[in-house]
Amino acid sequence: MTLTDEKAAVAEERLTTLGAHLRTALDGRYAAERARNRATFPAEGALRPVEMGIEESRDWTLARLRALDAAGFGSAGVPERAGGHADPLEAVLTFETLAHADLSVTIKSGVQFGLFGGAITNLGTAWHHDAFLPGVTSMELLGGFAMTELGHGSDVASLETTLTYLPDTDELEVHSPTPAATKAYIGNAARDGRMAVVFGQLVVAGERHGVHAALVPLRDEDGRDLPGVTTGDQGHKGGLLGVDNGTLTFDRVRVPRRMLLDRYGGVDESGTYRSEIADPNRRFFTMLGTLVRGRVCVGGGGAMAARRALSIATRHALRRRQFPAPGRPDGVLLLDYVVHQRRLLPLIARAYAYGTAQNALIAALVHVQGDDPSTERDQRELETFAAGMKATQTWFANRAVQEAREACGGAGYLSENELTALRGDVDIFATFEGDNTVLMQLVTKALLTDYRHAWSALDRTGVVQATTKAVGERVMERTAAGLMLDRLAATARRRPEDTTLVDRGWHAYMVEERERHSLESLARRMRAAAKDGGDPFEAFNRLGPHVQFVARAHMERVTLAAFVETVEACRDREARAVLERLCSLYALASIAEDRAWFLEHNRMTAARSKGIGDQIDALCRELRPHALALVEGMGIPRGWLTAALLED
Amino acid sequence: MTLTDEKAAVAEERLTTLGAHLRTALDGRYAAERARNRATFPAEGALRPVEMGIEESRDWTLARLRALDAAGFGSAGVPERAGGHADPLEAVLTFETLAHADLSVTIKSGVQFGLFGGAITNLGTAWHHDAFLPGVTSMELLGGFAMTELGHGSDVASLETTLTYLPDTDELEVHSPTPAATKAYIGNAARDGRMAVVFGQLVVAGERHGVHAALVPLRDEDGRDLPGVTTGDQGHKGGLLGVDNGTLTFDRVRVPRRMLLDRYGGVDESGTYRSEIADPNRRFFTMLGTLVRGRVCVGGGGAMAARRALSIATRHALRRRQFPAPGRPDGVLLLDYVVHQRRLLPLIARAYAYGTAQNALIAALVHVQGDDPSTERDQRELETFAAGMKATQTWFANRAVQEAREACGGAGYLSENELTALRGDVDIFATFEGDNTVLMQLVTKALLTDYRHAWSALDRTGVVQATTKAVGERVMERTAAGLMLDRLAATARRRPEDTTLVDRGWHAYMVEERERHSLESLARRMRAAAKDGGDPFEAFNRLGPHVQFVARAHMERVTLAAFVETVEACRDREARAVLERLCSLYALASIAEDRAWFLEHNRMTAARSKGIGDQIDALCRELRPHALALVEGMGIPRGWLTAALLED
Repeated sequence: MTLTDEKAAVAEERLTTLGAHLRTALDGRYAAERARNRATFPAEGALRPVEMGIEESRDWTLARLRALDAAGFGSAGVPERAGGHADPLEAVLTFETLAHADLSVTIKSGVQFGLFGGAITNLGTAWHHDAFLPGVTSMELLGGFAMTELGHGSDVASLETTLTYLPDTDELEVHSPTPAATKAYIGNAARDGRMAVVFGQLVVAGERHGVHAALVPLRDEDGRDLPGVTTGDQGHKGGLLGVDNGTLTFDRVRVPRRMLLDRYGGVDESGTYRSEIADPNRRFFTMLGTLVRGRVCVGGGGAMAARRALSIATRHALRRRQFPAPGRPDGVLLLDYVVHQRRLLPLIARAYAYGTAQNALIAALVHVQGDDPSTERDQRELETFAAGMKATQTWFANRAVQEAREACGGAGYLSENELTALRGDVDIFATFEGDNTVLMQLVTKALLTDYRHAWSALDRTGVVQATTKAVGERVMERTAAGLMLDRLAATARRRPEDTTLVDRGWHAYMVEERERHSLESLARRMRAAAKDGGDPFEAFNRLGPHVQFVARAHMERVTLAAFVETVEACRDREARAVLERLCSLYALASIAEDRAWFLEHNRMTAARSKGIGDQIDALCRELRPHALALVEGMGIPRGWLTAALLED
Repeated sequence: MTLTDEKAAVAEERLTTLGAHLRTALDGRYAAERARNRATFPAEGALRPVEMGIEESRDWTLARLRALDAAGFGSAGVPERAGGHADPLEAVLTFETLAHADLSVTIKSGVQFGLFGGAITNLGTAWHHDAFLPGVTSMELLGGFAMTELGHGSDVASLETTLTYLPDTDELEVHSPTPAATKAYIGNAARDGRMAVVFGQLVVAGERHGVHAALVPLRDEDGRDLPGVTTGDQGHKGGLLGVDNGTLTFDRVRVPRRMLLDRYGGVDESGTYRSEIADPNRRFFTMLGTLVRGRVCVGGGGAMAARRALSIATRHALRRRQFPAPGRPDGVLLLDYVVHQRRLLPLIARAYAYGTAQNALIAALVHVQGDDPSTERDQRELETFAAGMKATQTWFANRAVQEAREACGGAGYLSENELTALRGDVDIFATFEGDNTVLMQLVTKALLTDYRHAWSALDRTGVVQATTKAVGERVMERTAAGLMLDRLAATARRRPEDTTLVDRGWHAYMVEERERHSLESLARRMRAAAKDGGDPFEAFNRLGPHVQFVARAHMERVTLAAFVETVEACRDREARAVLERLCSLYALASIAEDRAWFLEHNRMTAARSKGIGDQIDALCRELRPHALALVEGMGIPRGWLTAALLED
């Protein structure tokens, strides 16, 4: 698509000038690609009629995905053959575009191309690519990603399924030794899948080599389970009815040795285990690490669901009047009520904030998985960032969709207004691709590791006076956005109380302090717990709520840094002024939620804290006239919203 | 049922001793009635299979309600004829029992018996009772409650539908003058209803007399719309698929004059409007006030949904292990994780807290609607209490069900585990029978009225030095439970920082201070706004968030008072010790959520505030061994939970 086409598309949407600029700013470095996706996505018929039963929903979803794949919105980014071009950016942006519409289709595409295709691409080698990727991308071969087991959801290392090498026949035996080893919640398992990437403990000559994955055929051409394979249908769910989640068990199923996805570890022709990564733990995390794209996608998909819901609720609030008031005989527009503004506008600010951070996350993914050289540290940081963004954005999506539903009253409960389907579909985003609470633990674990490294590095360089503060700062200042935030914070650090409540330096200082101090105190408590001598599980278990707090504080800091960078990059004066306010609203809402913490830790006076609520109200009031543009900026084309309550 | 039968029923459920005592305590003054309901409720087949489509769901729901009505669980509490016995207690407890199971059935019963039957009972006179109540209670006559209009949800006073008296034919003409006047979201309107109580502006001889209600036939025996009536089907919803919500419009439909429900105002034989209540405003609120039972029921129903969800998630967390840990090779029970305890146990404490307050609310309803003499002030206080409890409990239900879903991971998303249907069904509880945000405004309005009255009363008695503090205290100390809380608060008021964090006096002092101070400051701001001279709407609009805060603070104080009273009434030593901890957990969780407010208003030191989190953790740890008994105490029989994840 040429630039002229893009302009025509925007014109067709009839965006306000401000809305167009806000959209460009929020789309950020991927504005051109996103505009192209919006202009070419076949939006008609994009939402499944809600009355459909399970089988009909599955039929519809599969057919829709085939049509989208044919239109270039399915396997985009997945290479079609060995040596083919894998484009992580195209993959992520395509997923995001799909998430503007039916989420069953989105998730089914994620299962087929992201998980099934992604595992073959990333864990397999040339033979696997040549043999299977053409079928994956054309959807002739539908497959599942069989990692989770009934007994082991978040705890992948404890998977019970075994992949045992049989030297006599040069085969792998795939086996589910217990009911708890049953693969569960596997998309494409209940009906459509013909094959699955099955994760299990690789056993060679009696020795265990940890979790590996193999390609295992599930069904014959007519859809009957192959010998030894038992598939199960998990039936009706709270949403995503179009995805056929099911169970898989294997009773000593044999596949040829080469079906093992052996990029990071495999069995050679002599029947010996070989891996370039000697440390089994490092190998395990390297293998899992290649799957990070799924988390980037799911977080971004959740964000789109939130934006859709907020678009519907805000557009409704700009039409709907209720209760006459002095000077307003026809009733007051919902969005003119301060209480209603407080429900929606801070959520919109947060949607923008996460959008900017998601852009930074995508850039990190492209850096690591693209053609540039990248380090193991880059990879590890990407995983942490992706884990945090997935948890943060999907929790946010649930909250935003529910608030939007309530803000639309009874109309919000009618399925014709899209919100209840969104709510049901997005619910599970908080659980799949990693339970959010567990992901937040991962974030903090990574921060603690960095913290220990920074500490010992300082120690080695002889800085014996190294304060924990210096260590904390070293941990935080890696990215350009982080450095920018840190410079801002420096302007407020000396006399924070002399700043205004919308001073960006003060916001930066506050969110940095929250992360730094809570991380330092957690590290101290961890050390004390390690020395405690009591039950080590209990000692660390008690730090659980603190661990969650640190992860949240970190993600809020990273998000603010990204938002500030986006504001700085905006060249349109009017849009920038609006973004400044949105950024302040986000920062203040974040600080307000933890203002007890700031008061307890003497980072803010009571008088200042008391003023935050009024300042938030003032920002809402200032943003209120731009509400439509804010919605347009979130990027969901009006024509894609089918909610009946927006019709005349 | 005899006492022996009840004991047998408990034995059949095999409750722990502690669980049985906790249940008795939480059931409170209605323990016998609730035990009887649990023992006699036909629980088998109580949940609708989730795969059913709309029509099948409606069929199932109607059939189930007929069966329950035949078993004594339908029209219970509705009189069957003029002069018959209306028993508000039986009605409320029956609704609550129904809410242990399928919520479509519960809501359909609420529409038929509570709203349709309730309006005839409360707004009609002997002729209406004789003519229609037998059909209502036998379910031969199914009806709707047509108050809400598309254009007027919360704003009942602005209804556009007209009920015009036609002297020539001695009829009422029912008319929908605009599309916005369309009755919407009306249960029983889409399919089953043959008649509706239609609210509209009564016009007699060209004069408007405000909102009244008339009985209007909708369909003939074959289900066809009667001439002038247009019914519409609002189709698929986010839940409650078994309830046939629809629209109604009237094109100059005529009904005999006597179809007007004229207990509080009507047209006499000479065609003249007559009412015993001269003030139209008072008449309006008197008519609406008789419908308070619906709010009592909906709040209590929401509470039962929360208890069911928490029962499932907690029982699951007592079975499910994840991640091995030192000394725990088979994995750690979910409920042994502090983070998991923090997710579920404070919600359970809150479920108990609201249960005690709901008991107090039911008692107030019985007092006002029962045979005792009661005052207009009693009625007004009941309405405020009911509004607040409805909002508080239904928001809580949404939160608790979602947390329970996430706490059950992927399994929580499978419909076979009940939680997603609960989530979908209970969602709309936050909107119907009064939007929660609007209801909370009503609560604060009532408090402000009391406040002004108390102020002027003090003024009249010459207490010129009356401090606002004295006024605030006068407003709060009406009930026995309130007085008990106030005595407790007095013990801590002088030296609050010398108490422990589990000192009940300190809890009482804190929640009283929160309400008193925020109410006083709101009253001050209201006065200032009134004098401001600017746009009066905007002046009050800006106080919206403050208004919500006051309502919440009030409800938390009232809830704590009820909880304390329940703890005091418990005679079993072990159960009482557990209730004490639950009460502390509830109080601390409530204080913790607003600890920024307490710090800002100098009601707590930073050091004390910092200790609250650890104290909450400690309480969770102390309650953890009693988790099963806590679940039993919430009163949902294990056998009524069909969640597959609880099976072996």
